[in-house]
Amino acid sequence: MIVQLKKSPDEKQLQALLDWLKSMSLDVHISKGTNYTVLGLIGDTSAIDMELIQVLDIVESVKRIQEPFKSCNRKFHPDNTVILLGDKPLGGGEFQIIAGPCSVETEAQILEVAAAVKAAGAAALRGGAFKPRSSPYSFQGLREEGIRLLLQAKKASGLPVVTEIMDISQLPLFDEVDVIQVGARNMQNFELLKALGKVKKPILLKRGLSSTAEEFLMSAEYIMANGNEEVILCERGIRTFETQTRNTLDLSIVPVLKKLSHLPVIIDPSHATGYAELVPSMSLAAAAAGADGLIVEVHNNPSCALCDGIQSLNPETFARLAPQVKQVSALVRQGGLL
Amino acid sequence: MIVQLKKSPDEKQLQALLDWLKSMSLDVHISKGTNYTVLGLIGDTSAIDMELIQVLDIVESVKRIQEPFKSCNRKFHPDNTVILLGDKPLGGGEFQIIAGPCSVETEAQILEVAAAVKAAGAAALRGGAFKPRSSPYSFQGLREEGIRLLLQAKKASGLPVVTEIMDISQLPLFDEVDVIQVGARNMQNFELLKALGKVKKPILLKRGLSSTAEEFLMSAEYIMANGNEEVILCERGIRTFETQTRNTLDLSIVPVLKKLSHLPVIIDPSHATGYAELVPSMSLAAAAAGADGLIVEVHNNPSCALCDGIQSLNPETFARLAPQVKQVSALVRQGGLL
Amino acid sequence: MIVQLKKSPDEKQLQALLDWLKSMSLDVHISKGTNYTVLGLIGDTSAIDMELIQVLDIVESVKRIQEPFKSCNRKFHPDNTVILLGDKPLGGGEFQIIAGPCSVETEAQILEVAAAVKAAGAAALRGGAFKPRSSPYSFQGLREEGIRLLLQAKKASGLPVVTEIMDISQLPLFDEVDVIQVGARNMQNFELLKALGKVKKPILLKRGLSSTAEEFLMSAEYIMANGNEEVILCERGIRTFETQTRNTLDLSIVPVLKKLSHLPVIIDPSHATGYAELVPSMSLAAAAAGADGLIVEVHNNPSCALCDGIQSLNPETFARLAPQVKQVSALVRQGGLL
Amino acid sequence: MIVQLKKSPDEKQLQALLDWLKSMSLDVHISKGTNYTVLGLIGDTSAIDMELIQVLDIVESVKRIQEPFKSCNRKFHPDNTVILLGDKPLGGGEFQIIAGPCSVETEAQILEVAAAVKAAGAAALRGGAFKPRSSPYSFQGLREEGIRLLLQAKKASGLPVVTEIMDISQLPLFDEVDVIQVGARNMQNFELLKALGKVKKPILLKRGLSSTAEEFLMSAEYIMANGNEEVILCERGIRTFETQTRNTLDLSIVPVLKKLSHLPVIIDPSHATGYAELVPSMSLAAAAAGADGLIVEVHNNPSCALCDGIQSLNPETFARLAPQVKQVSALVRQGGLL
Repeated sequence: MIVQLKKSPDEKQLQALLDWLKSMSLDVHISKGTNYTVLGLIGDTSAIDMELIQVLDIVESVKRIQEPFKSCNRKFHPDNTVILLGDKPLGGGEFQIIAGPCSVETEAQILEVAAAVKAAGAAALRGGAFKPRSSPYSFQGLREEGIRLLLQAKKASGLPVVTEIMDISQLPLFDEVDVIQVGARNMQNFELLKALGKVKKPILLKRGLSSTAEEFLMSAEYIMANGNEEVILCERGIRTFETQTRNTLDLSIVPVLKKLSHLPVIIDPSHATGYAELVPSMSLAAAAAGADGLIVEVHNNPSCALCDGIQSLNPETFARLAPQVKQVSALVRQGGLL
Repeated sequence: MIVQLKKSPDEKQLQALLDWLKSMSLDVHISKGTNYTVLGLIGDTSAIDMELIQVLDIVESVKRIQEPFKSCNRKFHPDNTVILLGDKPLGGGEFQIIAGPCSVETEAQILEVAAAVKAAGAAALRGGAFKPRSSPYSFQGLREEGIRLLLQAKKASGLPVVTEIMDISQLPLFDEVDVIQVGARNMQNFELLKALGKVKKPILLKRGLSSTAEEFLMSAEYIMANGNEEVILCERGIRTFETQTRNTLDLSIVPVLKKLSHLPVIIDPSHATGYAELVPSMSLAAAAAGADGLIVEVHNNPSCALCDGIQSLNPETFARLAPQVKQVSALVRQGGLL
Repeated sequence: MIVQLKKSPDEKQLQALLDWLKSMSLDVHISKGTNYTVLGLIGDTSAIDMELIQVLDIVESVKRIQEPFKSCNRKFHPDNTVILLGDKPLGGGEFQIIAGPCSVETEAQILEVAAAVKAAGAAALRGGAFKPRSSPYSFQGLREEGIRLLLQAKKASGLPVVTEIMDISQLPLFDEVDVIQVGARNMQNFELLKALGKVKKPILLKRGLSSTAEEFLMSAEYIMANGNEEVILCERGIRTFETQTRNTLDLSIVPVLKKLSHLPVIIDPSHATGYAELVPSMSLAAAAAGADGLIVEVHNNPSCALCDGIQSLNPETFARLAPQVKQVSALVRQGGLL
Repeated sequence: MIVQLKKSPDEKQLQALLDWLKSMSLDVHISKGTNYTVLGLIGDTSAIDMELIQVLDIVESVKRIQEPFKSCNRKFHPDNTVILLGDKPLGGGEFQIIAGPCSVETEAQILEVAAAVKAAGAAALRGGAFKPRSSPYSFQGLREEGIRLLLQAKKASGLPVVTEIMDISQLPLFDEVDVIQVGARNMQNFELLKALGKVKKPILLKRGLSSTAEEFLMSAEYIMANGNEEVILCERGIRTFETQTRNTLDLSIVPVLKKLSHLPVIIDPSHATGYAELVPSMSLAAAAAGADGLIVEVHNNPSCALCDGIQSLNPETFARLAPQVKQVSALVRQGGLL
């Protein structure tokens, strides 16, 4: 950590700061210039609250050099974390696809989609039971009943299931759920993250709409620091000025996260783009960028025209897309440049 | 709502759509052009899920004309909502200031700040007990003990108190709290919003870091649709590319919200800017923009140099600022242009 | 175009508007609802200035349905535009790479890089002579001398050359340049775009840092409306809040532009990410997303440590990357889903 | 400047870097830690190109401590720069308003508006002759004829005039123009900025749509470094995700620019918000934030309903607003907190 002091800092205050830093087991190197004095803090600064220093009268600015995250940091854990989706390893070099409808709607729907995505090679089934909707007047999901139907589809298809939690109080309903999803709007719901740190199953953590890569990793750190090391990072588009897509998919976060962290990284092209017609190209691009997998919306949609899905693929398109995506992933991994 | 159809829509699908719209008690006007057919939906469309229509094969795009919010909509409730902070009316023309430390730290601190801000004319005392921090290693607030100390300060000063809730499970601790704050990161924690809709006290709702005005009002609508009509809207800066300020204060949302809604609007210049030196100008600007009040950080901070506050005012500056802000507010209200 | 009127519009003003619209050869369909009256304008509205209508007292809002661009619109020109880089077709299904240093520095440098990128399969050589730098104290490029050296490399390597223009007055120097580049900061330098519309060579137009897809296409339209139909669209990253990358590469604009327009689309992964280590993954992802090509920075850099390039690839990495990118492009085109 | 080296840097490369830094007349302090070595560069680093250092193999990151701008830096020029608009001082404590139509349309229009804004206390007349429009099919301004009419209005009213330049080649037409405006889209048209650095009249420089405060000041620096020290900084809204306003007015840049620079700062509430109804509140807020003045659109608009201005005030509203804004400015200046 680099602390830049104001011109002619008060000597007493400076000494107090130096003493406090030493009490935190840090070494301090002092560089005095004509206009500025700079302190270089050496040691483990991840537990230091930058704001506590920044507020001091004698301090001009504070800059971190070490990343503020530890458990998810690749520097302290060079090997990739591999998380099992049933018997399929995520993060270990093989590309995995989680697929299914945005919302669980009926028994027939979820059973049919589960069978279809399994046949196309999906590693897990997704389906929303608790739905975060910006309007209180929109469909809020089948809730408990949705989880029941999803577990039925799990039993029928043999696929592990992924579904979203919206509040700590819903946790008892997730006992047989395989992977618990935290939505983008809850990425900094810190009480929920702490509670999920005490759960013994993988957490699929979505990046917030305007969260930096560092904030994203800090939210993973909340879960890990509370004891659960199985976190899957999921980019699902960020908010920008562009209106042709629902959000802007930030694929460059894949190599950034892979460099900073050992956790698996997957992409949600459905929420990122908001349009089914953009999903194939972004799925292929995600694989080429080095992602470990996808979570993608697939809907059967045969009779009911008014139920879901401007951003959902139909099962036929998904069946064509899935093997292509895996081929691209294999090709770039062989290339050895990622 | 305007539904633009694709060229040569399938007649059967079109008829199905028209029948469904009629079943929702909507009138439909059809305009046929050379390249496009457009449906104009007349009636109450606020309960219509745009996505359900957008997904149809025959539909090119859907645009809303009516706002999707009702309870907070000024069109259906032309008069300003006035919410009492103790005996001080917020939203009724008089400018109100909520002030206090970012975090409750000690009994001495909160009692001293409470006395200081009361003397300077604050209408309520703020102080964080549960603190949302991006790092699990940062100070998380005094939690239950913090609320106890805050209530002690309430008793001593006579000021009503405002403090943040982070999870539904904390609600029982808020019995004697006067105003419950929902932080920016929880603006779309819909389960929490629903629970607060059943509470009988004002909710101070902060705008999310990248939430549009419409999404902000929809979150207020979640609270109101569940029965609690006392919502205070608070702008606290949005996330942009600018790095000289912690966030970018969007003051133009004040007249926008005032036009769209009857709810009171206040500004948090402390979190918006992140620097105490920028707080006076943004406080004065907020009053000039027509805001109903401020929530501002004030810290006594005499002996303890390492506790808080790069963005907090000291009590002396606050005592000078408060009357100036009220003067500006009175001046622009007399001007009659807002 | 859809014009929504205010409640109870003044009849005389409404008639004046209707008369004016008819004088513009538009048919108007009127839908009257309880709260709103909506006008649907039928005909060619691309020449209508939306703001002229929006300003009227009786108008609540105006929404466009037809795109405001014509020459670059795929609806009026369904086939892909193919632009020749020397004898290599860009936009015709074969993936093309433009490569070279950020700045032309010395004769040795540009000749060596030209030979290297040609050997690796590049279709054209890039190299900056006029350099837009945010500081007046930074290196501004070799300017005229830079163009001279670049043309020397063109002669030696046989590669067509691409370089940036910064002002109309520099145009006479670009006589032997094969493709003229317009930088992101000049995307809305409309006088320059008009002048380039009168030039008979391809223009490589970079997307502005915060330009929407529609604005980007409107800038292409400026060039095309003035007579030059050879425009290459280049995404080079947009400005967001993320700080781990210099900009945020928006790959979803590839399928968006491909759908809206017939012009070729290429990606600049070097400026988008700002770091050489992120360039391979984003290059591969660009190909997988369906882009027609890349423009990428390559620098030889053997002896001179202080000359350029945190975002430049070295020739060895480029030689490994180029064939992989083409393989991915071929694979996804065979897949038939883009 | 702080240079953080990678772990175990190559000794030869480190020595080469140290030698080069010394050749640039910089002192270097070295702090060695367990994991990192940090170099502190002491001296004038404003001419150092950060990227030249960042690219080195041995370097992990480079951070600037000194601002990269000099001529506009308040540290080297503590007193406010005062620029005369005719005989009215801008930047000297008195609040000044520049007003007039978006575009010069007819002789009658510009003469009438000039008289009206003068009567209401404006210090200068604005009016666009060259209009940057995103569509080539939109009205591009009266161009030369527009300047002629504007100069006629100058003569008739006695007001100095402000109008926008779009290309260096137009400069000869600006001989009798008092203040030359550079639009937001040209803020980084560096060749134009250099040319304006050689002109002997004030330049009104608008902030780019997604430009940081630092980039904004660097563009001012381009003009000043070329010899013209009379630069007026103008905030006119930045691009964000919010759609209720055309842009998002960033008023916090006022105190930020005032702290970093000695140049006068004005606000354009018309382009920032895009709606006349939002202009009064944002004008008052600008004054309260400590701005030195406004540039605001006023249009007479009596007979012609279809000519301009969803964002223009009518002369009556302007006449009421102007004195109120000045009153607010005077009030906050007396307050002594800005």
